[in-house]
Amino acid sequence: MKRNLYLDVQEKEEALENFLGALAHIRPEKQVVSVTESLGRVTAEAVYARCSSPSYNSCAMDGIAVISSHTKGASENSPVLLEYEKDYVDVDTGDMIRPPYDAVIMAEDLIETEDGYRIIAPTHPFAHVRAVGEDIVTSEMVLPSGHEIRAIDISVLLSAGVTEIPVIRRPVAGIIPTGDEMVDFREALEGGGPEDGKIIETNSWMFDGLIRENGGTAKRYGIVPDRPEMLKKAVLSAVEECDIVIVNAGSSAGRDDYTIHVIRELGEVLTHGVAIKPGKPVILGKVKGRPVIGLPGYPVSAYLTFTEFVIPVMNLFLNRERGREEKIKARLTKTLMSGLKYEEYVRVKLGMVDGQMIAAPLKRGAGASMSLVKADGFCVIPQNSEGIMAHEEVEVKLLRKPEQIEKTLVLIGSHDIILDVLNDLMKEKRSGMSLSSTHVGSLAGLIALRKRETHLAPSHLLCEEDGSYNEAVIREMFPGERMAIIKGVRRRQGFIVKKGNPLNIRSVRDITPEIRYINRQKGAGTRVLFDYLLKKEGISPANIQGYENEAATHMSVAVAVQKDNADTGMGIYSCAKALGLDFVDAAFEEYDFVTYAEYLELPSVQEFLCALTGEEFGRHLDELGGYSREEIGKIRLISP
Amino acid sequence: MKRNLYLDVQEKEEALENFLGALAHIRPEKQVVSVTESLGRVTAEAVYARCSSPSYNSCAMDGIAVISSHTKGASENSPVLLEYEKDYVDVDTGDMIRPPYDAVIMAEDLIETEDGYRIIAPTHPFAHVRAVGEDIVTSEMVLPSGHEIRAIDISVLLSAGVTEIPVIRRPVAGIIPTGDEMVDFREALEGGGPEDGKIIETNSWMFDGLIRENGGTAKRYGIVPDRPEMLKKAVLSAVEECDIVIVNAGSSAGRDDYTIHVIRELGEVLTHGVAIKPGKPVILGKVKGRPVIGLPGYPVSAYLTFTEFVIPVMNLFLNRERGREEKIKARLTKTLMSGLKYEEYVRVKLGMVDGQMIAAPLKRGAGASMSLVKADGFCVIPQNSEGIMAHEEVEVKLLRKPEQIEKTLVLIGSHDIILDVLNDLMKEKRSGMSLSSTHVGSLAGLIALRKRETHLAPSHLLCEEDGSYNEAVIREMFPGERMAIIKGVRRRQGFIVKKGNPLNIRSVRDITPEIRYINRQKGAGTRVLFDYLLKKEGISPANIQGYENEAATHMSVAVAVQKDNADTGMGIYSCAKALGLDFVDAAFEEYDFVTYAEYLELPSVQEFLCALTGEEFGRHLDELGGYSREEIGKIRLISP
Repeated sequence: MKRNLYLDVQEKEEALENFLGALAHIRPEKQVVSVTESLGRVTAEAVYARCSSPSYNSCAMDGIAVISSHTKGASENSPVLLEYEKDYVDVDTGDMIRPPYDAVIMAEDLIETEDGYRIIAPTHPFAHVRAVGEDIVTSEMVLPSGHEIRAIDISVLLSAGVTEIPVIRRPVAGIIPTGDEMVDFREALEGGGPEDGKIIETNSWMFDGLIRENGGTAKRYGIVPDRPEMLKKAVLSAVEECDIVIVNAGSSAGRDDYTIHVIRELGEVLTHGVAIKPGKPVILGKVKGRPVIGLPGYPVSAYLTFTEFVIPVMNLFLNRERGREEKIKARLTKTLMSGLKYEEYVRVKLGMVDGQMIAAPLKRGAGASMSLVKADGFCVIPQNSEGIMAHEEVEVKLLRKPEQIEKTLVLIGSHDIILDVLNDLMKEKRSGMSLSSTHVGSLAGLIALRKRETHLAPSHLLCEEDGSYNEAVIREMFPGERMAIIKGVRRRQGFIVKKGNPLNIRSVRDITPEIRYINRQKGAGTRVLFDYLLKKEGISPANIQGYENEAATHMSVAVAVQKDNADTGMGIYSCAKALGLDFVDAAFEEYDFVTYAEYLELPSVQEFLCALTGEEFGRHLDELGGYSREEIGKIRLISP
Repeated sequence: MKRNLYLDVQEKEEALENFLGALAHIRPEKQVVSVTESLGRVTAEAVYARCSSPSYNSCAMDGIAVISSHTKGASENSPVLLEYEKDYVDVDTGDMIRPPYDAVIMAEDLIETEDGYRIIAPTHPFAHVRAVGEDIVTSEMVLPSGHEIRAIDISVLLSAGVTEIPVIRRPVAGIIPTGDEMVDFREALEGGGPEDGKIIETNSWMFDGLIRENGGTAKRYGIVPDRPEMLKKAVLSAVEECDIVIVNAGSSAGRDDYTIHVIRELGEVLTHGVAIKPGKPVILGKVKGRPVIGLPGYPVSAYLTFTEFVIPVMNLFLNRERGREEKIKARLTKTLMSGLKYEEYVRVKLGMVDGQMIAAPLKRGAGASMSLVKADGFCVIPQNSEGIMAHEEVEVKLLRKPEQIEKTLVLIGSHDIILDVLNDLMKEKRSGMSLSSTHVGSLAGLIALRKRETHLAPSHLLCEEDGSYNEAVIREMFPGERMAIIKGVRRRQGFIVKKGNPLNIRSVRDITPEIRYINRQKGAGTRVLFDYLLKKEGISPANIQGYENEAATHMSVAVAVQKDNADTGMGIYSCAKALGLDFVDAAFEEYDFVTYAEYLELPSVQEFLCALTGEEFGRHLDELGGYSREEIGKIRLISP
């Protein structure tokens, strides 16, 4: 099949407006539900009381019901004696007050005698009586339209005699996953993971969750193979059963991307291709009056296009305004370049450092779904902008609550899997504090610290002259500042090799030009160490096959070796061990946390120190392997 | 049975601390759930990847897979020809890249020829290839402990081969409603409303909702009559089946309040009586190691004590920090006096007027559940404080989202049921704007407007000299200000009488001393009108039985007449009609909306004008009856 290379890309706002215009016939529908099942639903019309509450004059206090005219003239000097059933009867809160009784005197105001109660003050009609209808009057409006039902509303509705209410019907959104390479997660994991060439179909479950989070009902269909006839059948039955149909993926212009052809054949395509990144290949169409939306397959693209195009359509059914996304202003840590052709969404981590909200960009690939899990929000680079400069203020759409972000300890610098463990330990303590780490390498971390864009900079920078770690470079980079090194772990650095070390690599000298090496990014401490070893042995980087092949974490190096994308690479022992690989020691380096001395007093840093020096972290280190912790948690102050 | 009049009242914080101390044995428990059912649950421990994603080197673009070494030297001047299966194969996004192919060239960069593709730039290994593990690496931590699962997390967990996760088990909270006077809503409403002396049991349904809103599972038991043996049996079976048991009510010290005795007999009572208002009669106890909590019966007390005592106990099971209530600062519109003995929670309505958040106190009775529905938050008067002065800044615990409050149009002044209708019409328009009205009478509303505590003041103040409405008093009260009257409705004011007018009331002269009258509060326009009529006829208020008996709304007057708490009272025709009562005309008055001329430009006022002059509102007025609208929506400017 021929490719249709170029989509007729539209601007996002224009595409959405057209689409919503074509769906102008959609009206929210009513559905009657039981009040006791209505929590979280939204009223479709005003609700009126069907009975009054209280429904009779009722006693508001424990005490006695009296005939108020019998209490006239009572005072401290001339108390009045009230006799049982002549002047009063005993009542408790909630009891009905029946004529001739017309008021209540509280038990606390009574003086008990043998003949009855003595009182020293008169009362008046309706004193301590909740008159009928005091709370709710028949026929009054209890709730207006568009009100989201809370627990308290439920009891008031029942008190008002309302047992069923009209609420806005949740739209049913159908999800059709497509693709020959897709496999159901249950099937895939029975065999211990997907076969080569197969991908676990997970987007439909994300959509399922997003639909529920946004007030809809999700209906998942089975995976449809790349055969136009089958897709056509699936779309036809979905438009019968659902209010909105999502086809995922096959929305691009590849040889097996039939979605566009199917929608065109069955109905109408309004838009194919939208100028947002990630997410370009979106299809907005209509079949039998129902919106049919083709979303791209990469998880990040799928997520973004869902929020930008499916939620507004759901809102038509829900009679809801477009979005109530939380936004926050933040200072960008590094320049983000972007093409003029697209509005680009960049995932960022956020943190409050020195009273300033900081946004550190994460990986930009549409396939990096983990970075979506880790992200605190999206920074949007407008179309027609070439990018945003470092330190500029940007607007970030939040994926987490601002109060969580404010309590976050920010770490930017070198990567180690122990950072995940420390975050877990901090979160377990339920102090509300957590740790947010961005992996840019030791040097870039220290630069971020210098710009006060991070609280801590995890670092293991070797001083080539004396083989020491961190201190020398800190003195050089932070002249005149009072700095602190929080001692972390000593860790085994070396060459990660395949099980059994088949190529017999024992030192940097064994990395001959036939060996496929995988390197780390510039500025990474591990790369500095590798360069140092090469230099010491007089080996030129030009002789290293794969020197330019960069991985961002130790774990990425390990998996490259495990899956035979490389023969070896430098990394820490724990990562080799985690993937069952072998390891050749090269150094025992110091992985520390650099900060300003003044930051040591921050509650979040204190909490971090607590986790770092705790016994539980020690147990984790032993289990991971390759770490020693003689100095862990010790603080070395560096005065100017 | 004797009353135990005085509870040994404890301070709230002390009582809670003791209680949580006695429950220190409670630990959050884990429960394994399917990832696809885990939306909104909270991880009980860190979750690690069980497989890598992608699980193979996969094509990142539609195009061709090539052997990168075959592309060396390609340039515009010397393009390289790539031949099918010798140099390349066709691939689409997601396809596996198998050796010897090691890179992908995008379709857009290919020049198609008869013999194959021509390229004008070389590529390098892994170009446009998503290397195995690029997104997720086996064994890496996907989620830390204490993470609330979102839709995006679900798909990433499945991609990482995780199908089940340990989450924190939801605590089961059992609810035992008690009381001889209580009746199930289904039973009560079969007969068209509860019998005299019976109350619809609604608190258990509010608790049911509150428990679910706060992450627990609710278990409702049937209503237990006031018999200690039956209550004992119910509590014993509930502590077997639930983590937390709530008994409601019977927590006070009335003759039928057995809860305290039952808990004491079966276990231990830690606290009986807490210094908060409303809510004092709380019981905090323990039976067989389980928390058993007795909550008071009034809806507002029940709501408050639930949030103050049950939620912290639920948090022990949920491993969650105490509360994340939203708070806001606001300026109080009137002085709130309070006793020194209690911490008092006063419901308030909030609104943003002239850039200042304003809090207007609502009814304080513990039985006024409607005011809880209408409230925007609680203002807390600390124990040991005699109250808070008008215009002081107070902290308000929010019951609504701040963004909703900011879009609210504030009305303080005279009451008419058409205000509910206008609010409903504004909410229906889904502009996010709504109307918040507090009923204090015309005069108090104008005073609030003078202090800029409201946007609009609904008013129908009669000028006794010329029989005109509103304008005279505005000129007097707002000298030097540019004011505006938004003309509202003309409405029939008169005497609300029983069906058939059995006492034959035809004018104010017929309100003889035997007639039980119900009056309105001071400052209410209706009271001003009544006083005017009395004066005109030379009748002294002392001759009116019930002149001191005040109701706050027209509807309250109508229900008092309907339920025979009074023979007549002044009110508007629509309220008499709503309750099927008869009506004797006394005046045709002008009910207008007073504001500052400058406020006319506010979007919320514009939206209000839209609703006021719309056809739908007209239809509502016709249906309610007793309104005319010749001038509706017209604006009369009053220049100084």
